[in-house]
Amino acid sequence: MDAAQKPPEQVFDWLDAEADRRAEAGLTRRLNPRPASSAELDLAGNDYLGLARDKRVAGAAAAAALRWGAGATGSRLVTGSTELHAELEHELARFCGFQAALVFSSGFTANLGAVTALSGAESAIVTDKYIHASLIEGCRLSRAGIAAVAHSDAAAVEHALATRRTDRALVVTDSVFSVDGDLAPLTELSTACRKYGAALLIDDAHGFGVLGEGGRGAVHAAGLAGQPDVVTTVTLSKSLGAQGGAVLGPRRVIKHLVETARSFIFDTGLAPASAAAALAALGVLKSEPDLAGKVLANAARLSEQLTDAGFRVSRPDAAVVSVQAPSADEAVGWAARCIEQGVRVGCFRPPSVPDGISRLRLTARADLSESDVDTAVKVISACAPPRAATS
Amino acid sequence: MDAAQKPPEQVFDWLDAEADRRAEAGLTRRLNPRPASSAELDLAGNDYLGLARDKRVAGAAAAAALRWGAGATGSRLVTGSTELHAELEHELARFCGFQAALVFSSGFTANLGAVTALSGAESAIVTDKYIHASLIEGCRLSRAGIAAVAHSDAAAVEHALATRRTDRALVVTDSVFSVDGDLAPLTELSTACRKYGAALLIDDAHGFGVLGEGGRGAVHAAGLAGQPDVVTTVTLSKSLGAQGGAVLGPRRVIKHLVETARSFIFDTGLAPASAAAALAALGVLKSEPDLAGKVLANAARLSEQLTDAGFRVSRPDAAVVSVQAPSADEAVGWAARCIEQGVRVGCFRPPSVPDGISRLRLTARADLSESDVDTAVKVISACAPPRAATS
Repeated sequence: MDAAQKPPEQVFDWLDAEADRRAEAGLTRRLNPRPASSAELDLAGNDYLGLARDKRVAGAAAAAALRWGAGATGSRLVTGSTELHAELEHELARFCGFQAALVFSSGFTANLGAVTALSGAESAIVTDKYIHASLIEGCRLSRAGIAAVAHSDAAAVEHALATRRTDRALVVTDSVFSVDGDLAPLTELSTACRKYGAALLIDDAHGFGVLGEGGRGAVHAAGLAGQPDVVTTVTLSKSLGAQGGAVLGPRRVIKHLVETARSFIFDTGLAPASAAAALAALGVLKSEPDLAGKVLANAARLSEQLTDAGFRVSRPDAAVVSVQAPSADEAVGWAARCIEQGVRVGCFRPPSVPDGISRLRLTARADLSESDVDTAVKVISACAPPRAATS
Repeated sequence: MDAAQKPPEQVFDWLDAEADRRAEAGLTRRLNPRPASSAELDLAGNDYLGLARDKRVAGAAAAAALRWGAGATGSRLVTGSTELHAELEHELARFCGFQAALVFSSGFTANLGAVTALSGAESAIVTDKYIHASLIEGCRLSRAGIAAVAHSDAAAVEHALATRRTDRALVVTDSVFSVDGDLAPLTELSTACRKYGAALLIDDAHGFGVLGEGGRGAVHAAGLAGQPDVVTTVTLSKSLGAQGGAVLGPRRVIKHLVETARSFIFDTGLAPASAAAALAALGVLKSEPDLAGKVLANAARLSEQLTDAGFRVSRPDAAVVSVQAPSADEAVGWAARCIEQGVRVGCFRPPSVPDGISRLRLTARADLSESDVDTAVKVISACAPPRAATS
């Protein structure tokens, strides 16, 4: 075959061809490392409560690094579980209203672990087709039969459950979808699960810290926390300003994950500094239960003003507000001009947008002032490409 | 169907049945959170150079948390890339002899990203059947045709490459296998790849910091660093005592990962404290090039003494020394008795051992003294189950 003749320098030539195709489609991505401090107004990060730089949180991370060491030194089942991890798990479960919790090194690996360990070849999985990439990867790994149904369509989920051929089934959804910030029909999904004997797995990455009583999350707000058939995942890297993820659920589910989730067993434990930061941030959230409400107020303000300015804006159910752009190229240019004007906004393009529509993605942090929001709207409007506004 | 009648309390009953099966097979796993400090002699962790608690490393983590915040605040392509990440990537690439590097939040996600982004449905993957679980998950996600050949068998790899039906092929291996600590035939694998136009992906998690000139890793030692058809992954959580992983390779490979690796794009960036700790540890490794040799000397001493005591011991090519146990149950009891006697050893059972043989897994850290090794051997011998020693 020809391959035998390929010199080593040409083995990766196909990557250049793919890069050219992405460039033609306006989908080139580049890393832009940021400095430690900047005068920019940040509406791109997921530090929803502004806690990443809070002295109580960053201070706890620093103290933990000195006390426990820079790393966990091993997988969680060998040397990587410290009393800090155990305390964080206890407090997360208690705060969110679940029997137990298990901390992973990222939300990504938490989702991989939860989906794969709770399904399998003998199970059916029914998902909203807009679920997060990490849940999709979990589904692909699961060996289960997958039905990905229309976005936010509980009736379609019910139909898929009713017509499945397996005894076991797992319904998988985001609580708040990461691109448009819209809330899933959690109550209807739970009703469908109950009617057809399915378990419900909800990724509350964008609801935790923002929705529900004092930020207990979208699952808690829907009255589903602690239910025997409900499992939730959260991240420690968004509202808690740290790094990592966790699965919350019935005690037997957590025990099962400890013993079978490959992304848990074969991964080094979360660094003590990150565990301590998340624990401290949870303490702040408990002591300042109005933080979550500030996020929602800022999101509403941002969305209203941008709508008034004529843009196609998502109706925010949590912190995320998205603004549609006419094309991927124009979204990139728009975001770049905003950054030049001192406002950092996210730019989401295919394949990060499930419907193929490129967007600016804004996050309404709790610590934005009214004048910050006004500035952001002014800059976004001034930098908009010609066809972005409908009016 | 019956499922429709299942009450929510019974949805997860199948987990209890699986737990019972694991208990019967002696495969129950439990978390044992450890305190911040302990008089135990640790031969279980992967902190090979003893740097996790080094003041330069832990101090750098603490300083970074205070300066940069507790978390990266977003995915690497949005707000999660700091100048600290860029510096770490530059230094890692330079130290290990590659054009470029990309830092992931874990070695697990680095492996997922490297395997999936460098293969695909139009590619064949040929792997050693003992590769790490994270590489296996990457293969499962890749949609590529997979040939998993006999352990350490370069001729079998060559045969699989010669008989493949795709133009593109990727050979995937660990450099040092995590259970027995044995080295893959890297030179022979590279020769096979060259003969048949395949790329070579090597997970150097257990070689980096321990093997090669000054700890530059097994890939560097084999003369393969910086080759145009070779990609390597390393962890920041073993020899560097921090958390995270990285992919090292040609510049165009790294660019491709930035733009396409889903476990990179859809994950929050590594916490600044962990990036800074890894960077500081790399500095220590550069300034103390004899650290790696100390690991190897301790591993040899440990292996020789345990062999002399009559156990079935792996011949260590790096830091890991494994000792075979008669059964899973007896391995658990053996490890538990060692811990009671103040020596923490790892206990690997199915499915963490590819050949089904349960083992004690010991790591010979650079900072173990000769008397530490002697103590460990004494305790392991005294705690052994009846059938463990052959003599």
